[in-house]
Amino acid sequence: MTGIDGPGPDMNEHAGRGREFFTTRTVAEALAGFRPERRTAAETVALADALHRVPVAPVAAPQALPGFARATVDGYAVRAADTYGVSDGLPGYLDVVGAVRMGASPEVTVGPGTAASMPTGGVLPPGADAVIMVEYTQEAMAGTIEVVRPVAPGDGVVRADEDAAPGAELVPAGRQLRAQDLGMLAAAGVTSVAVHARPRVTVFSTGDEVVPPGTATLRPGQVRDATAVALAAMITQAGGEPQAGGIVPDDPAALEARLRAALGTGDMIVISAGSSVGARDETAAAVARLGPPGIWCHGLAIRPGKPTLLAECGGVPVIGLPGNPRSALVVFRLIGVPLVRRVGGCTTPPAEPVVRARLGRDLASAAGRLDVVQVRVADGVATPVFGLSALLSVLTAADGYVIVPE
Amino acid sequence: MTGIDGPGPDMNEHAGRGREFFTTRTVAEALAGFRPERRTAAETVALADALHRVPVAPVAAPQALPGFARATVDGYAVRAADTYGVSDGLPGYLDVVGAVRMGASPEVTVGPGTAASMPTGGVLPPGADAVIMVEYTQEAMAGTIEVVRPVAPGDGVVRADEDAAPGAELVPAGRQLRAQDLGMLAAAGVTSVAVHARPRVTVFSTGDEVVPPGTATLRPGQVRDATAVALAAMITQAGGEPQAGGIVPDDPAALEARLRAALGTGDMIVISAGSSVGARDETAAAVARLGPPGIWCHGLAIRPGKPTLLAECGGVPVIGLPGNPRSALVVFRLIGVPLVRRVGGCTTPPAEPVVRARLGRDLASAAGRLDVVQVRVADGVATPVFGLSALLSVLTAADGYVIVPE
Repeated sequence: MTGIDGPGPDMNEHAGRGREFFTTRTVAEALAGFRPERRTAAETVALADALHRVPVAPVAAPQALPGFARATVDGYAVRAADTYGVSDGLPGYLDVVGAVRMGASPEVTVGPGTAASMPTGGVLPPGADAVIMVEYTQEAMAGTIEVVRPVAPGDGVVRADEDAAPGAELVPAGRQLRAQDLGMLAAAGVTSVAVHARPRVTVFSTGDEVVPPGTATLRPGQVRDATAVALAAMITQAGGEPQAGGIVPDDPAALEARLRAALGTGDMIVISAGSSVGARDETAAAVARLGPPGIWCHGLAIRPGKPTLLAECGGVPVIGLPGNPRSALVVFRLIGVPLVRRVGGCTTPPAEPVVRARLGRDLASAAGRLDVVQVRVADGVATPVFGLSALLSVLTAADGYVIVPE
Repeated sequence: MTGIDGPGPDMNEHAGRGREFFTTRTVAEALAGFRPERRTAAETVALADALHRVPVAPVAAPQALPGFARATVDGYAVRAADTYGVSDGLPGYLDVVGAVRMGASPEVTVGPGTAASMPTGGVLPPGADAVIMVEYTQEAMAGTIEVVRPVAPGDGVVRADEDAAPGAELVPAGRQLRAQDLGMLAAAGVTSVAVHARPRVTVFSTGDEVVPPGTATLRPGQVRDATAVALAAMITQAGGEPQAGGIVPDDPAALEARLRAALGTGDMIVISAGSSVGARDETAAAVARLGPPGIWCHGLAIRPGKPTLLAECGGVPVIGLPGNPRSALVVFRLIGVPLVRRVGGCTTPPAEPVVRARLGRDLASAAGRLDVVQVRVADGVATPVFGLSALLSVLTAADGYVIVPE
């Protein structure tokens, strides 16, 4: 943040300059319209490291899965026709000609009037077209079973290509890999996958008053950098790789130099841009000098979080966040997280945790502005946690937030 | 899984033995009643590594936060009483006696009839009790401002202890640290935190037919181990540290030896227990021999996933999962994930992502059994993805699941 050295006139000048190039957009406009082209490159990772990574292309099944017709129940492989019409009162009788062993090729063929014992998961032997559950059979005499229920062809069996036909899409591009997706790839023998590299997001905090969190004793007016560690966590959650840009003092040239260096070492830049009008103007001016196409908007119709800057400079998306930690985190959740995902190739974002609750009281809201209200949730009732946008405790006391749309 | 070597009699014997010690519980009973005592020890981690970790104790604020009264707007620090009764038609006039700089102690005192210019975030100077927004002021002449709106004491100011009083709880024990929690700790100068160690969960896959995912060509009857990599991912998501137990052939003595070794090197054991009745019985027998108190239940009233075993042996929780990958993952999501969290000290689990949708068709269900039905969700309609419990593709095709309770 910049200091305000003079009294009134200087401040009014700042406010005046600010208003001149102030382009305010709604959150909906920003999500739909601010769409930088940048995407991270592909890299190949082992399946064990692929959770939540985003495939660059769909992965197809190299062969049919499971690859052979398998029993889905413990019982007997039979020819279904041999069981037609049987019942408790009129059982059928089949000769047991052998047993199929797990994990092995069947050494038996099932002909008319015969059956082979089967474990769940065993290979359906030649000649058989169904597996009857052991519960519907009984040993009649040594080597012969009584069958009391009919089965249709395919009963008790998974087809050789029922889990995946050769060439079928196992996982799509652009969607984070989930646990079950990794399982499916493993089943198909796919042990590594080409995914988007994690977007490297450089996080800067600005302001002469900002000191590292490890500062034990604060001088009057100093604040510890709360935003950077929280932003880093949110970047990680969004699939990105946070890079510490550090704390930049209120020196426009220093800020520009640090931002310019970050253009070459990362995929995205996030700045806690200072909370005073002067500080915001200086950040905006430094960002504007970084390169085309430049600033996309210089304010968002959101509370808290209005003084948000969105820009793209030399192919790198830049987000200037409000100086208040709470506002910064709210805006980053709504605008920054989707952007990190997008740069990381994610086209199908994961569902957010949502709970249904009754609002404990009415919320006022302005038309055309999106309001984010933190709430505590208990027994199905969401109770707003009110407080100044400077207060982080509003966020830590809350279980979640309610969005009052534009 | 074990092979079924003989025909009928052997299988019936297995089924009979199985039934004898079959204790089936509902999922609700398991979640409420199967509560092993094991908890991981404490370890200290840096804030940057603490996302989603679970504090072993509440963390209290060492000092008041922000620690000084701060301006929340750009404007002028004033004595509120000096503004009472002012309006656009009848402005008040104040002498500007100086400016507060960001991050510095105020070098000015605000007496009656005076004001000091303030940046957002600046320290409220002595004598002032409010900050009036610059928008409600105007320069009247050099060194004097016109004030057109009254302010009350405290307006435009955050109190010195408004974000946290000394000793106030910054984060509770037993709840995963979120991004904003890390920000709050950083603001308070807390740069490391005592958290539960990640529970080490050893994952075994059993069965002569199971081969590593890297096996390029399967022999008839072989299946690649799809479950282990998916379970490892779910363990990671639940805050645990998966340990590869590997594939254990169908040899009861080998299984028991491998499980016994894992008792000493992990906090929890998970076994894909084979899908045939015989395989499940062998797993149960091996688990029963590991030590007291032993098996808690030997079946869950859930579909898919009935053949689930829950046990505690020598202080280590053990979950025996169904052999079908899909059933195994469904059960682990509902029973295993909460257990991993619990062993890792989490008493307030995070909210699961939930969407509200209309079911595309009626679902049949049995009383007393919990049914898990995979669904695709589009345009607010959840369409069931049906398929055999042997099919992983049902899970990968689905966006989520619907639970039909007992």
